[in-house]
Amino acid sequence: MSEFPHHQAETPSGAAGPLNPERRQLLLGGAGLLAGAGLVGLSPRAWAQGSPLPDYVGWKNADALIVHSANTLETKRDAIGRGVLTPSDQLFVRNNLPAPDAGIMQDIEGWEVNIAGVNHPRAITLAELKRIGVETVVSVLQCSGNGRAFFPHGASGTPWTTGAAGCVAWTGVPLREVVRELGGVAEGMNYLTGTGGETIPAGLDPKTVMVERSVPLAALEQAMLVWEMNDEPLSLAHGGPVRLVIPGYYGVNNVKYVRQVAFTAGQTDAAIQATGYRVREVGVSGSPDQPSMWEMPVKSWVTSPLASASPGRTLIYGVAFGGVHGLAGVEVSVDGGSRWAEARFLGPDLGRFAWRPFVLATELAPGEYRLVSRATDDQGQVQPEERVDNERGYGHNGWKDHGVTLTVA
Amino acid sequence: MSEFPHHQAETPSGAAGPLNPERRQLLLGGAGLLAGAGLVGLSPRAWAQGSPLPDYVGWKNADALIVHSANTLETKRDAIGRGVLTPSDQLFVRNNLPAPDAGIMQDIEGWEVNIAGVNHPRAITLAELKRIGVETVVSVLQCSGNGRAFFPHGASGTPWTTGAAGCVAWTGVPLREVVRELGGVAEGMNYLTGTGGETIPAGLDPKTVMVERSVPLAALEQAMLVWEMNDEPLSLAHGGPVRLVIPGYYGVNNVKYVRQVAFTAGQTDAAIQATGYRVREVGVSGSPDQPSMWEMPVKSWVTSPLASASPGRTLIYGVAFGGVHGLAGVEVSVDGGSRWAEARFLGPDLGRFAWRPFVLATELAPGEYRLVSRATDDQGQVQPEERVDNERGYGHNGWKDHGVTLTVA
Repeated sequence: MSEFPHHQAETPSGAAGPLNPERRQLLLGGAGLLAGAGLVGLSPRAWAQGSPLPDYVGWKNADALIVHSANTLETKRDAIGRGVLTPSDQLFVRNNLPAPDAGIMQDIEGWEVNIAGVNHPRAITLAELKRIGVETVVSVLQCSGNGRAFFPHGASGTPWTTGAAGCVAWTGVPLREVVRELGGVAEGMNYLTGTGGETIPAGLDPKTVMVERSVPLAALEQAMLVWEMNDEPLSLAHGGPVRLVIPGYYGVNNVKYVRQVAFTAGQTDAAIQATGYRVREVGVSGSPDQPSMWEMPVKSWVTSPLASASPGRTLIYGVAFGGVHGLAGVEVSVDGGSRWAEARFLGPDLGRFAWRPFVLATELAPGEYRLVSRATDDQGQVQPEERVDNERGYGHNGWKDHGVTLTVA
Repeated sequence: MSEFPHHQAETPSGAAGPLNPERRQLLLGGAGLLAGAGLVGLSPRAWAQGSPLPDYVGWKNADALIVHSANTLETKRDAIGRGVLTPSDQLFVRNNLPAPDAGIMQDIEGWEVNIAGVNHPRAITLAELKRIGVETVVSVLQCSGNGRAFFPHGASGTPWTTGAAGCVAWTGVPLREVVRELGGVAEGMNYLTGTGGETIPAGLDPKTVMVERSVPLAALEQAMLVWEMNDEPLSLAHGGPVRLVIPGYYGVNNVKYVRQVAFTAGQTDAAIQATGYRVREVGVSGSPDQPSMWEMPVKSWVTSPLASASPGRTLIYGVAFGGVHGLAGVEVSVDGGSRWAEARFLGPDLGRFAWRPFVLATELAPGEYRLVSRATDDQGQVQPEERVDNERGYGHNGWKDHGVTLTVA
């Protein structure tokens, strides 16, 4: 769920029956295509008059964003990346289904999350969650398809480059504290399964489109039920009133408008889990035996300068993160990776799930340069040079494709 | 300068001659009072049509602010304090003189700061500063008069309670790196003196109103020339294009629109330094032999709940900071200070100049409670129980006055 490539195209036509053309159009997303489908929440009427942004994200900074569709907004590469936190109004947006009606934000304290698969299962309101406990964790939120635009085979889905990622502070209650209140996880459970509160469009089999994701039970260590982002109440655009956040995991696992958190023996059979977000070779269909998009690996990219600079002393900036691990360091090359220099981290360390801006000061004579960066996590895992080609263009952390060509004159 | 009590009332009438009534009115601040004085920048016309905020801070969140005057805006106690960073649109504002015309933000890269008292003095543009080096430091920005409202003798100046404080991320170049480029500090210099770029109202002796502050040379260790706050270009309201920031020092030392940074043998004779921001007994005039408002001591206060709560488990929140030092811990009492419990810090540690939100979970039966908090810095200095009465109501860090009465029913 969340800031993520269209999982719908993942649905094998055999699973839910062939999609009729009208449905297909609906599922392809984009405000224009949806006009005839009766989804008021995403029809062109939902775009604010004279605004380049849809209503539900009308408060965002349009100058910092690339609007791929009403459900997919990317942060521009030069708007991101020197800051320890990404301002909320610049953070990317990715919804797998249209956001629910804004009416769900009227009584946020009364929002209920059903907790299942524990010894004393029951529904808990946000008001009650707020009394159980609280923590603030900073983490990178990144779409599985971030970097998809660099895949040469034309992977279907939003052509994100670097901007389907940001780093924000989440405030909420550690899920393990909620579970403790409810008597602990029931025996035999292996997964943590979150269900989103989106409205399922009429006439569709819920399993084919619902946002329901399972992650390994080990993620309970860091999972949170979140009601604030960057110290402000969590917006509808980012999953308010309550979102399940799994720091270190790809965006799709961070279920928005979360209605249920269940501890389950197996993974959900919803298409977004069973066949969606599965890594496989180009041309192969998704299936449950393929790797799921869970933990994020180490990654970095340069954010400035991106095209030109004047000769002399130049500061090269970027961001780096270790995914589920902390960072050990990051190197920068100005010759496409032949020689590397260690960059310096900028600003405070916000914890192992956060990104760190970095900077390298260098002297550049007139000419053309290829700037690349390469991060190493605290387990010694180094960002690879090459992408791993895969059908949907997931998980790209190869440093070569993320380089930029700089003209110094 | 900056977010600060009106230093003008500090000017002893003998120093600049008795102020005539018109000047006095001008200096007392407040949009209404200024109407007749011809200061376009602060006249009522400068208040946006239908907005509760003056134009230059029209982008702020009015709901989070108490408008004392056009130059003094306080953050509400319940709008502050659970976050590791204060959102820019909620941060308090204190200007000692009206902000310069917004035209100075047209060419921020060309803004010049004159660096004097170094071996190779010269003016440096912001564009050049950005190439020398960069760092991001998080620090508490706090007015010397924060807590003034709690002084019983009616200290003159803005009646701040807790909201003339916030915690923000500053990005800029460490001043020591600039100094290194210019050959180091000249011999015999003992102070770092910053001069603001405000326009001096016609007819006034500049020394009586100009914003020019000196701090001990030791502050060069952490001083910065800053161009970003919370990862966005520094706004005019907060001192853009460039501000001198001395992390750990009271707000007045963080000179906005900084035009000159000089290393000097003595302190400036500007009134804001010579007689303003001097701590002395009630009824005594300011003079250079009294302590200046430089380093901030340890402080904390509760931010939630502030008035009422329902019985049962209650989370008590607040913020704590050590000023120039890091924090060792913070305790909370619900009975006005008879018994204390250690609170837990919330979220990542952003460094020794930052504040840390804290939380204590407790069970409260129906009744009335007095919530207070008491922080200890990493030097073992404990926040005192009582304020130290002083003429201008400066530097209040006594925990007792900062308590709140809570009704649980």
